[in-house]
Amino acid sequence: MKIILLSGGSGKRLWPLSNDARSKQFLRLLTRPDGEPESMIQRVVRQIKDAGLTDDIVVATGINQKDAIESQLGDALSIVTEPCRRDTFPAIVLACSYLASKGTPADEPVIVMPCDSYTEAQYFKVIGRMAHAVSDGVADLVLMGIRPTYPSAKYGYIVPAEKAEGDGAQPVKRFTEKPDVPTAEKLIAEGAFWNGGVFAFRLGYLSDIAARVMPGMDFKALRNNYATLPKISFDYEVVEKATSVAVMPYAGQWKDLGTWNTLTDELEQPFHGNVVVEDCGNSYVINELEIPVVAIGAKSMVIAASPDGILVSELAKSENLKHLVDGLGKRPMYEERRWGEYKVIDYIEFKDGNCALTKQLTLRPGCSISYQRHSFRTETWTFINGEGELVLNGERRTVKAGDVITIGSGEMHALRATTPLTFIEVQQGTSLVEDDIERFDFEW
Amino acid sequence: MKIILLSGGSGKRLWPLSNDARSKQFLRLLTRPDGEPESMIQRVVRQIKDAGLTDDIVVATGINQKDAIESQLGDALSIVTEPCRRDTFPAIVLACSYLASKGTPADEPVIVMPCDSYTEAQYFKVIGRMAHAVSDGVADLVLMGIRPTYPSAKYGYIVPAEKAEGDGAQPVKRFTEKPDVPTAEKLIAEGAFWNGGVFAFRLGYLSDIAARVMPGMDFKALRNNYATLPKISFDYEVVEKATSVAVMPYAGQWKDLGTWNTLTDELEQPFHGNVVVEDCGNSYVINELEIPVVAIGAKSMVIAASPDGILVSELAKSENLKHLVDGLGKRPMYEERRWGEYKVIDYIEFKDGNCALTKQLTLRPGCSISYQRHSFRTETWTFINGEGELVLNGERRTVKAGDVITIGSGEMHALRATTPLTFIEVQQGTSLVEDDIERFDFEW
Repeated sequence: MKIILLSGGSGKRLWPLSNDARSKQFLRLLTRPDGEPESMIQRVVRQIKDAGLTDDIVVATGINQKDAIESQLGDALSIVTEPCRRDTFPAIVLACSYLASKGTPADEPVIVMPCDSYTEAQYFKVIGRMAHAVSDGVADLVLMGIRPTYPSAKYGYIVPAEKAEGDGAQPVKRFTEKPDVPTAEKLIAEGAFWNGGVFAFRLGYLSDIAARVMPGMDFKALRNNYATLPKISFDYEVVEKATSVAVMPYAGQWKDLGTWNTLTDELEQPFHGNVVVEDCGNSYVINELEIPVVAIGAKSMVIAASPDGILVSELAKSENLKHLVDGLGKRPMYEERRWGEYKVIDYIEFKDGNCALTKQLTLRPGCSISYQRHSFRTETWTFINGEGELVLNGERRTVKAGDVITIGSGEMHALRATTPLTFIEVQQGTSLVEDDIERFDFEW
Repeated sequence: MKIILLSGGSGKRLWPLSNDARSKQFLRLLTRPDGEPESMIQRVVRQIKDAGLTDDIVVATGINQKDAIESQLGDALSIVTEPCRRDTFPAIVLACSYLASKGTPADEPVIVMPCDSYTEAQYFKVIGRMAHAVSDGVADLVLMGIRPTYPSAKYGYIVPAEKAEGDGAQPVKRFTEKPDVPTAEKLIAEGAFWNGGVFAFRLGYLSDIAARVMPGMDFKALRNNYATLPKISFDYEVVEKATSVAVMPYAGQWKDLGTWNTLTDELEQPFHGNVVVEDCGNSYVINELEIPVVAIGAKSMVIAASPDGILVSELAKSENLKHLVDGLGKRPMYEERRWGEYKVIDYIEFKDGNCALTKQLTLRPGCSISYQRHSFRTETWTFINGEGELVLNGERRTVKAGDVITIGSGEMHALRATTPLTFIEVQQGTSLVEDDIERFDFEW
């Protein structure tokens, strides 16, 4: 079997830790069995491997998440990036055609699932049985059905042909998207499940649908023509049109840790980072800054600090966060990249229109920043730790702590770390945007 | 009359806004009548001038506060700095001998008072009457007596010879330092006052006492031998030994805004800086950082953020702050200096023992950093705004935004601003302490 993890979303509901560049699945706030921190996506990949399901995992994601996934999961999986943003149907077709291009046979079972559900081991056993069910021909499409615990109005419901108590696959009669509460109560009485967004099918099943909707496209053609593909969801194009659909029940823990209120419930450590607390009850303090956070007498609150900002919120009211922070901060102040990480430590706009942006950057050994130039800014790099190799206008030299390099606008530059390499970058110009970058090929 | 303002204290009870370099009297959180922000010391000096008491104000303070006072009050007053820390008697004698050295006659009335009491106009009228009382020979020493509002155990009490209701000077019978509450109740029944730390005397009165305790010392000799002077308080050496003492009553507003709980009561603006709030009642958010603070559902709390750290505290519990923060942060992360201001924006200690400290500094036009060298650090200066003049190893040159200067350890350097001059400084070395600085004379 193969697993396709869907990694999307750029949420601010966990601001200031999540931002446009760092989605919630990348926050290392959970705890591994060995006590080390892990993110939601690291947890799901670890659980897949612990369950012995497969080593063949493909993450379907946008280009903006590629660096974070590589940094967190490295060689543990493959990454298929959408060249631009479409909907889930093209994204899943692209990942499936990638599997086909790598020689995956048409009868191989494929699981499509979210990368950030917070669940327990039983969930992965059900996934294993879903794969068996499609292999055995129980149905073309098998969905996971979460046994509802209350009549929620925020989930889609899967209604089985007949109400049943067991944990075997059942034929599906119909789907109902986000009903009102009285309707949800009736659906539950009929034995309906929540749709958990986990799908199983044989690879050939989806290839056939793709060939009908977007004929004659292999992986390469899909990528090259991605912007022209229809913006339709997998639910609409595949699930709702399917004639042979079954649901496999799951009754264990299943949570979306998408808000501070739900996430903090699962934190083993209420305090992260440089934190001093006194007399704080049912409160969580997460500090990614180096300066200390001192909390006294906070009750049922979340306090979170990152280079993007500082949140102090009553837990129950933290769901209001999104509309308050949508207008804030045009740029991410912290990013995990393929080559390492950076944070913005200072930013000033002067009256004359000039701006200065100061970053602290660290490259991992062997990693490099691509050969590039900027049109609207100069950069000063002061190396403060480690060693590396710099290319400036085609000339190579080594750099180490204590060296200072100035890079004028239009000058070509690349950098590779030999050891962990940390430097302070001061950008100056009238427009200091990430987009002001032209990348060129370079052979190290 | 002359006024000596005592400016001392390096408190952390208003952390993270106050630190070892920034005492509470320098926080610009109060509001002038014209709506502009002002600090406690600026308010007291403005009130003295509004009351028409005198233009001759001397601040007696430590060397570490000199820059902040010059920056906030400029030419409005004189500053007499203690060469090292003694107690209030030597400090007041030093300030008085400074006045004498400037030709102040022996019969001139002198007022000694704190620089950070939060009071109203009537307070300064009483001070004026205290000066008149010593001029008129009512007593050698006249103290302000604050009419008590409750039997506090934390103040000193001044007991008059007879209980009286009026606002005229009364002879003093005795002093009682911090009695217990039942004793305080009895003292109040006797007509006792709180000691507000405001004293009036003729200059010659104190000169005579000083000549007896520390004979033969003029201003210059006192400064040069300051470390050898006795560590005794003005209360002990002067007030308690005085034979002719009167108390002048004051019954108006009199507060020490020394904790978040008392300070926030007097803030006209509950929110300062880059702040977003929703559903916060009786809460104060003061943000000196550039990143936003978002507060949701905070009730009766103070939230304060500065380069030194972040505080989130229930107002009533903010008095506990001091013992929690005493161990934090060995260095001030923000300082107001004679030449401008700086903040630390990044600090890292590496495993090999090397450290890197990054600051953003701004010099005011015409102001300069002294000619200096460091033994244990290099500095990289990246200028990001304005123009100035640099001296490096004796050679002068102009610098402007875009320029980068590296200063090796042992290299002599000075800098003067022509326009507001902002630069990013990266310090590197094994020991990055403010003390690693040797200053030299330089004629601009």
